[in-house]
Amino acid sequence: MFKEYDVIVVGAGHAGCEAAAAAANLGSSVLLVTMNMETIAQMSCNPAMGGVAKGQIVREIDAMGGYSGIIADKTTLQFRMLNKSKGPAMWSPRAQNDRKRFAEEWRLALEATPNVDFWQEMVGSLIIKNNTAVGVKTALGVEILGKSIVLTNGTFLNGIIHIGEKKFGGGRTGEKSATGLTEQLTELGFEAGRMKTGTPPRVDGRSLNYSLMEEQWGDENPGRFSYTDVARPADQRCCWITYTNGNVHETLKEGFEKSPMFTGRIKGLGPRYCPSIEDKINRFAERERHQIFVEPEGWNTCEIYVNGFSTSLPEDVQYKALTQIPGFENAKMFRPGYAIEYDYFPPTQLSLTLETKLISNLFFAGQINGTTGYEEAASQGFIAGINAHQKVKDQHELIMKRSESYIGVLIDDLVTKGTEEPYRMFTSRAEHRLLLRQDNADIRLSPIAHKLGLINDERLALVNDKIANSDAIVEFTRKQGIEMSQANELLETLGTAALNQNVKLFNVLSRPQVGIEDIRKVSKPFDELLSKFDTETVEQAEIKIKYESYFEKENEIVNKMQKMEDKNINPDFDYNKLLSLSKEAREKLLKIKPRTLGQASRISGVSPSDISVLMVHITK
Amino acid sequence: MFKEYDVIVVGAGHAGCEAAAAAANLGSSVLLVTMNMETIAQMSCNPAMGGVAKGQIVREIDAMGGYSGIIADKTTLQFRMLNKSKGPAMWSPRAQNDRKRFAEEWRLALEATPNVDFWQEMVGSLIIKNNTAVGVKTALGVEILGKSIVLTNGTFLNGIIHIGEKKFGGGRTGEKSATGLTEQLTELGFEAGRMKTGTPPRVDGRSLNYSLMEEQWGDENPGRFSYTDVARPADQRCCWITYTNGNVHETLKEGFEKSPMFTGRIKGLGPRYCPSIEDKINRFAERERHQIFVEPEGWNTCEIYVNGFSTSLPEDVQYKALTQIPGFENAKMFRPGYAIEYDYFPPTQLSLTLETKLISNLFFAGQINGTTGYEEAASQGFIAGINAHQKVKDQHELIMKRSESYIGVLIDDLVTKGTEEPYRMFTSRAEHRLLLRQDNADIRLSPIAHKLGLINDERLALVNDKIANSDAIVEFTRKQGIEMSQANELLETLGTAALNQNVKLFNVLSRPQVGIEDIRKVSKPFDELLSKFDTETVEQAEIKIKYESYFEKENEIVNKMQKMEDKNINPDFDYNKLLSLSKEAREKLLKIKPRTLGQASRISGVSPSDISVLMVHITK
Repeated sequence: MFKEYDVIVVGAGHAGCEAAAAAANLGSSVLLVTMNMETIAQMSCNPAMGGVAKGQIVREIDAMGGYSGIIADKTTLQFRMLNKSKGPAMWSPRAQNDRKRFAEEWRLALEATPNVDFWQEMVGSLIIKNNTAVGVKTALGVEILGKSIVLTNGTFLNGIIHIGEKKFGGGRTGEKSATGLTEQLTELGFEAGRMKTGTPPRVDGRSLNYSLMEEQWGDENPGRFSYTDVARPADQRCCWITYTNGNVHETLKEGFEKSPMFTGRIKGLGPRYCPSIEDKINRFAERERHQIFVEPEGWNTCEIYVNGFSTSLPEDVQYKALTQIPGFENAKMFRPGYAIEYDYFPPTQLSLTLETKLISNLFFAGQINGTTGYEEAASQGFIAGINAHQKVKDQHELIMKRSESYIGVLIDDLVTKGTEEPYRMFTSRAEHRLLLRQDNADIRLSPIAHKLGLINDERLALVNDKIANSDAIVEFTRKQGIEMSQANELLETLGTAALNQNVKLFNVLSRPQVGIEDIRKVSKPFDELLSKFDTETVEQAEIKIKYESYFEKENEIVNKMQKMEDKNINPDFDYNKLLSLSKEAREKLLKIKPRTLGQASRISGVSPSDISVLMVHITK
Repeated sequence: MFKEYDVIVVGAGHAGCEAAAAAANLGSSVLLVTMNMETIAQMSCNPAMGGVAKGQIVREIDAMGGYSGIIADKTTLQFRMLNKSKGPAMWSPRAQNDRKRFAEEWRLALEATPNVDFWQEMVGSLIIKNNTAVGVKTALGVEILGKSIVLTNGTFLNGIIHIGEKKFGGGRTGEKSATGLTEQLTELGFEAGRMKTGTPPRVDGRSLNYSLMEEQWGDENPGRFSYTDVARPADQRCCWITYTNGNVHETLKEGFEKSPMFTGRIKGLGPRYCPSIEDKINRFAERERHQIFVEPEGWNTCEIYVNGFSTSLPEDVQYKALTQIPGFENAKMFRPGYAIEYDYFPPTQLSLTLETKLISNLFFAGQINGTTGYEEAASQGFIAGINAHQKVKDQHELIMKRSESYIGVLIDDLVTKGTEEPYRMFTSRAEHRLLLRQDNADIRLSPIAHKLGLINDERLALVNDKIANSDAIVEFTRKQGIEMSQANELLETLGTAALNQNVKLFNVLSRPQVGIEDIRKVSKPFDELLSKFDTETVEQAEIKIKYESYFEKENEIVNKMQKMEDKNINPDFDYNKLLSLSKEAREKLLKIKPRTLGQASRISGVSPSDISVLMVHITK
């Protein structure tokens, strides 16, 4: 009934969709197995993509030929570049999205990917031969052979939904949970754990009083995620901001004794940085209010997502508290918020390719690895899909470096350190974040994607043009002078000191107060040059002019550390032989099996002296 | 947490959506409770609306201010007026629809209906006081009060899905079943039964070879369901026709021993007139082939609905058989077909308002009453929604007559005769079908809808204009003559005898071969008159000219029978007192509690002599 596929992807959320697309675009025949074809690429939680560090990940996926950025752009309700007032390493693109359109565009994109086939059913078990995954078996008993298997089960594995004291099985509200896989994997020797996440109530936008809230519009000249030329909606939609208050908090506290979180009914740990509202008022008792983002779910629907109000308190408590928020006095709920507990597999059981160490050709991506967030899931799916293909086709594996991408940071963190609570990306997790910017994801990653075959020559050429042209602009500013008389009035307006001699453009542009768009107004030759290039190229040049020296320093650090990263360790290295290692280090090293000395150095419990010991032996 | 609603509708399929809209538009505050807000108005089976007798029902719903026709028009992929070569009583509009758009438009229409609120949860039980429904209790334990309750549970009540020898709980594939309600209702004294329905596999349109199939396009000048001016898609999509053959049948037979239908694992009866493919080759063993309609699921998706191939055979048998159908040689399945068994309540437990006899203010509509088909469900929901409102507001009940609508036939059949297999509408079920045409649903039903307040004055005026204008056209043809010289060449072309004297237009137009569009070409005054009116008015005039005499005869029959229909029977009439009734008649009459002598006469087991006895006593 089925041919043998190169890659079978189980689950069609953000991770599964990217995995299927990536493997298929590389040339693998792919089967995407989902429990319900109507819910492919559902945004289970908030109707938004990107945000701090997460937006950078979407840009990275896009730079490498993934689809998340394109789909997000096509379905954008509102776009904002967060942190624009800070340095460019902090700039983070974020979009509100139409939930239904997002899912639909993903499905159409996959249907338009010729190598992707679909099958709707629950996968009940894996077919394993000689410790190698060779297929899946569905609930109906259908056996489907695949040379690589990518599991992206999200919150579905033995999912249990909690609302107050009630609990019931489910992978998302209104949907069934998936059973069988965890049991088989633990029998095979995998360690499994429980995690928890949550979602807020949805309300009827017709019942809200927006005049009591603050409007929040998107950027006037909205940017985008994709480096490609995606057609985006011309309009934007408004969001709103409101706040909780003491009354809301008191009401919520009344429900604490029925909270599945506080009474211990939920065993799994929840996402620390995306806490429930009850968690927030509990952990930050001194805070008088918490911000609530009121987000539309789509262009036409009146359904509203109450971002910041994730909760698993009893539905009547949710309701009573909601109606004490300004603007929500007459709110009608559509669906209560809930918490969901699900199985995950501590990701230290994976190699940096996202293949499991126990079972060959078996890859895990997304929440099954203990992460939270669409972007984190999508990026893992993307890398797992690539490596599933590469493995099948006997091609080199793809390991993303910490110094070249957030994706590299994410996977290295997961695999090297593991996680006991849902892992979310932050800029602070990336030691080289100065280099991992949203503006240069294409520059950083296009060569890798091109080598793999995920982006074509034309696209790489555009990136090289961007580099060459922005360099040319920088060079021009080093040579082209500006006269005091031209500049001083402007400089005064911008609140910076006047020149006391004629200088080069570069010199003026280095000042933080002075923008490239300011200077082009007072320098005709400069304006003429810039008019030849697109916004991204000009922006790239400006970033180089302003921050090049910082980048150079950071690059030096990367290069120094690279020596550690370049020292490969054979995964079969027998740490038991190294008696001078501490017991803890030996155990951890045996478990993680680091690929490089750099990775070994990041394992908690492996000390610098352990690293010295290792260095001696692996360089022998 | 919830106000007391006038009407609570449980379930948001075709029945539930129409019920909610109707009650809300009449002025009731309505809560629509659904297990999943993402699946409101799912077309669970084929992506099409209308068809023989069903299209008439959609027109009737539309004429009365329901939404099904509007939604269907907005999302039409292809439109055909079936049976156009037959008499106008057989003309039946049918549309292919974009499945996702259809569901989305319904949801947006409901969101745009101010009195409709939404709540996402499973209803686990009813709140009953003094044999009156006063609310619902959800799975979470939330009690919501409502003055009337409409149950439209579809196939969800204790739904069990069968594929070959496998079975599992579910309301539709990938969705949970609903539990609790049947158990409560049977405890309250309701009789419950099991029914079965099925759906075909869905396949990947990219894998089909359309060159081996026949194209089927829509009408060149497509009509529509709605009498209102709905904007419809400008384009149409192609469908295809192919056929099974001996090899397909032999392959399917190999699976018979694993068929849940033939091995007795499915107890419920399936729809006789929408049989599974295995049923068809079993019951019509002499047929060498069966037609398969290959229907696209939407404008963009490659998913294809294999209409005519409903099956619950094992998925590998489905697949093997499918690939032997011309054009399907390389077919890839997306999802297997399946059968689903579910609870229904024999509809003889209802009054003609669709209120249950046992519990006041409780209404049933749709598959819960043992029907099949979107249109049958929608029309019941519509009437139940109206009556739920009328009851709450102490207004007169709405009972649709058999002589004025298919909806009346449907409900009278259900309530009077009951059904043991899924009930589907046919033109042959309507004894007055000559009068119940798709072209005059507005003329028949607008006054009723206007009196209820479901359509406004303006809309009624348009209908009255249509009547007056079409009558004026008919009158004109009775007076305006046509000369032999003008007509004879045309009449010859049309294959009908030449005139041997000048006659009135009416005379020529009465001939079956001669169309109104033909004659306007040869009669300038007639063309001038017709150019003042729209197509529907002109068509109405033509139908009157050609068939008025038949309609008059039919109306005489209706009037005669109306005497029986007008003889009301008190629902509390004590049949036990009438010793001259046969025992069977007495039992049936006590159970059905007919409202009129006409209804009593249609109860199986009630003989003409029983009716005579009754007539004597009820007219006393």
